[in-house]
Amino acid sequence: MGRRTPDVGALVAGARDGDPRSVARLISLVEDESPVLREVAAALAPHTGGARVLGITGPPGVGKSTTTTAVVRGLRARDLRVGVLAVDPSSPFSGGALLGDRVRMGDHAGDPGVFIRSMASRGHLGGLSWATPQALGVLDAAGCDVVVVETVGVGQSELEVASLADTTLVLVAPGMGDGVQAAKAGILEVADVLVVNKADRDGADRTARELRSMLTMAPDAGWRPPVVRTVASRDADNGVDDLLAAVEDHRAWLTTSGEGERRRRLRAAREVEAIAVGELRRRMGDVGGAEALDALAGRVLVGELDPYAAADELVGRL
Amino acid sequence: MGRRTPDVGALVAGARDGDPRSVARLISLVEDESPVLREVAAALAPHTGGARVLGITGPPGVGKSTTTTAVVRGLRARDLRVGVLAVDPSSPFSGGALLGDRVRMGDHAGDPGVFIRSMASRGHLGGLSWATPQALGVLDAAGCDVVVVETVGVGQSELEVASLADTTLVLVAPGMGDGVQAAKAGILEVADVLVVNKADRDGADRTARELRSMLTMAPDAGWRPPVVRTVASRDADNGVDDLLAAVEDHRAWLTTSGEGERRRRLRAAREVEAIAVGELRRRMGDVGGAEALDALAGRVLVGELDPYAAADELVGRL
Repeated sequence: MGRRTPDVGALVAGARDGDPRSVARLISLVEDESPVLREVAAALAPHTGGARVLGITGPPGVGKSTTTTAVVRGLRARDLRVGVLAVDPSSPFSGGALLGDRVRMGDHAGDPGVFIRSMASRGHLGGLSWATPQALGVLDAAGCDVVVVETVGVGQSELEVASLADTTLVLVAPGMGDGVQAAKAGILEVADVLVVNKADRDGADRTARELRSMLTMAPDAGWRPPVVRTVASRDADNGVDDLLAAVEDHRAWLTTSGEGERRRRLRAAREVEAIAVGELRRRMGDVGGAEALDALAGRVLVGELDPYAAADELVGRL
Repeated sequence: MGRRTPDVGALVAGARDGDPRSVARLISLVEDESPVLREVAAALAPHTGGARVLGITGPPGVGKSTTTTAVVRGLRARDLRVGVLAVDPSSPFSGGALLGDRVRMGDHAGDPGVFIRSMASRGHLGGLSWATPQALGVLDAAGCDVVVVETVGVGQSELEVASLADTTLVLVAPGMGDGVQAAKAGILEVADVLVVNKADRDGADRTARELRSMLTMAPDAGWRPPVVRTVASRDADNGVDDLLAAVEDHRAWLTTSGEGERRRRLRAAREVEAIAVGELRRRMGDVGGAEALDALAGRVLVGELDPYAAADELVGRL
């Protein structure tokens, strides 16, 4: 409103030069479903595909933000450019090149090699925003070697982050009780690397042992997730080098097994399909109108049509 | 497999006569996506629309199954025919006319006025099965005055059950701590009636008071959810009459305000749209093939196409 039409070409050029304001603006454009969204996607496309995506998830209180900070520190020490998308409403995540006003400054403040963006989650249940893949594309085109997507593991979001990531880290903490028990089935499904964080606490041995024993029962998919112990804190990053080594191992396996290519292809297919379904849904609302759907619903209600026959009519209008 | 093609007409006639085996078989047909699914939907349509749908949800451990049993007992005492869909993997729900082997017998064993079916949830995160609306239609056509849908309130499922129900009961228990706090935002969104169960426990007053105070802050939508206290157990159903009175009040409000008609229409529209989207998704997989989508994904991966342009191509093939 009142803002002039953005010069998408200039913004993409700026982002590729590492200008944080251009990166921030592009992410805002995709997040806000700007009318230039398609133009942005088209301009980014030739420059994407270089970034690895690292998902970090786990239940509330497990230390995701601290671990993300430590991981970013480790990646920067290896001279990698890093993007962070923090999709966690409760995250106190902080730092780096300031991308938008929802981010506070912190450890990485002013480091031009780190872009950090906090993103709204989808509703109070914590699902990833639909714009997350698009925001990933912006950071990818901006030359990030690694993009970390941090999200709280509740509801669907741990599955969603795993479907976006090349490598998914699932964090657990010792002594978290029933919640962890309940989540374990889900954890094992999505984890490429399991991280027992706060490993200086009582019960860390037992938690690591239990996870390993559950893993031995899982079907062999060619990669057995390692269980790494960390104590990530403001002052010490014990175990984070092991963690990054495990990520590297997984990366090598992704390459040699072909699983990496398979995941990326599947991810692209899923994104294309989601956009197509969104477009078709829009057309069902537009062509003939939401009125058509409402009229069909009325006929279903009185038993004149069954829902399948009504759906056929709706599809027939497209 | 090996089973003969079902006689849908005879099954629907049987269900309308109150034959539990016919009801069970029809629910299995929709749940298993039988080839006769559309035939079943068409045969049911003229006989649906009579049942009220009562959603019962809440966090694990709050006493949903016991409350459901008590509610069913209360409805039976009012001479109403009742169907129950228990979409809760952990539910020890039991009783009634045995609909399928996943249900155990209990309080309502052999009562021909109660149909009970336990349904698989969608994945370990507890979402409603896609077949829930279809199963509802079967129980509706079978002459149930009320269908109770019981589901554990985690992740998306509390929203899903509310979108199906005419009236949604949300159960909380005193002293459940942070989980309840965290869930409250969601609870207030979906609850038509709030039930403080286990109201003989310490903290029940405080919980009821807190809920009421949160409700006074919610925007006025014409209906302020009452807070009812219950102690549902195997031996006593204290407060269940109040609960059913609150459900009746809500029903009257649904009628006079027109909100009931609006909800039912919206529900039917959502079901039709979901079937249409599923059909379109299937066509995107079929026409041109999953291969087409995979090929488009490959072109997106190498930066030759952006995801929006790829989606346009996919939609263009329909």
